[in-house]
Amino acid sequence: MRIGELSARTGIPVPTIKYYVREGLLPAGELSSPNQARYEESHERRLRLIRGLLEVGGLSVAAIREVLAAVDDKEQPVHKMLGTVADRLVPAVGREEPDAETALARTKVARLVAARGWNVEPGCPAGEALASTLAALSRAGHGRFEEVLDAYAEAAERVASADLAYVAQTVAREDLVESVAVGTVLGDTMFAALRRLAQESGSARAHALP
Amino acid sequence: MRIGELSARTGIPVPTIKYYVREGLLPAGELSSPNQARYEESHERRLRLIRGLLEVGGLSVAAIREVLAAVDDKEQPVHKMLGTVADRLVPAVGREEPDAETALARTKVARLVAARGWNVEPGCPAGEALASTLAALSRAGHGRFEEVLDAYAEAAERVASADLAYVAQTVAREDLVESVAVGTVLGDTMFAALRRLAQESGSARAHALP
Repeated sequence: MRIGELSARTGIPVPTIKYYVREGLLPAGELSSPNQARYEESHERRLRLIRGLLEVGGLSVAAIREVLAAVDDKEQPVHKMLGTVADRLVPAVGREEPDAETALARTKVARLVAARGWNVEPGCPAGEALASTLAALSRAGHGRFEEVLDAYAEAAERVASADLAYVAQTVAREDLVESVAVGTVLGDTMFAALRRLAQESGSARAHALP
Repeated sequence: MRIGELSARTGIPVPTIKYYVREGLLPAGELSSPNQARYEESHERRLRLIRGLLEVGGLSVAAIREVLAAVDDKEQPVHKMLGTVADRLVPAVGREEPDAETALARTKVARLVAARGWNVEPGCPAGEALASTLAALSRAGHGRFEEVLDAYAEAAERVASADLAYVAQTVAREDLVESVAVGTVLGDTMFAALRRLAQESGSARAHALP
């Protein structure tokens, strides 16, 4: 199809599509004449993925470029590739110089990982993100919020097992990474919205609202 | 204390503190002489909160200003004030013109809310955020990810009930809003990190890694 049809099908303006091509997010169409490029179904699908990651996932263009590069790199073994994608999707946390709070938070993370019997590498990006969050809670004077940690960890196990069951249905390599990327990013947004709905409902009940 | 001591105690540079004052995030210190302002413990606590919301929560200065305004507005009844804070903390989603996907997603959200017996207003920001996420999943060709929705909703109920139990321990009005703001924002980050740890562990097991 021509770029105009690609734009009509996806609802993404032509200049935006050209911008994605320049930024390396979308492969260029195949030239069918010196002034005209032909786009395939695969372009349409990728555009929808880019839009989902950008608009709902809130990822930067740079982060999307990295995720898509992992989708397209057929050399990496599957487990490694999924790990790469997952690490890039860890939410950004303040990259400060580690202080006493951070050191203490790291030991708490190690204790939690051991208590749950989780098979993860010490110092992996997700563990560091958790340590940074605990350190930030403590610095903000809300270290006591840690008391929810066990309930959160148990809920996270349920969510992760639903995630893995979903991903396990997918066989093709490209689709697998895409499922992980989409499910991880949009799954965070989805869980955050559900958590707020459940909070509002619980709060309304506690205050005996109609 | 003087601004220099406030900076030393919090590790936040003096120009940054002055910027927060200009932006309305931090009340100005009380002038003790024409060139010198005095800061209190309350300034120190608020600075730590701002830093936590900014660096770990990833909130914009504008969003932090709104959250802090709700903390400081003593006129609102508690439940309403907490609702205001919660609504402002709903993660940003693409504010597009509602399309057919959005309309369908809204009916799915309404069905889920009814099935769980949640007491929430139709069209509340969290419900809209969930509908936008479902619509984005569908547009990205991953509508099938919805099959995890029930597992997520159940996990969200557990997390929300831990959240509410934590908040219920707090009595003073200012602390309450602060707990909700900090717990909501940092709770998202914390859960996202835990979800990734549990995913990595589950994935390592599934691939029989050591």
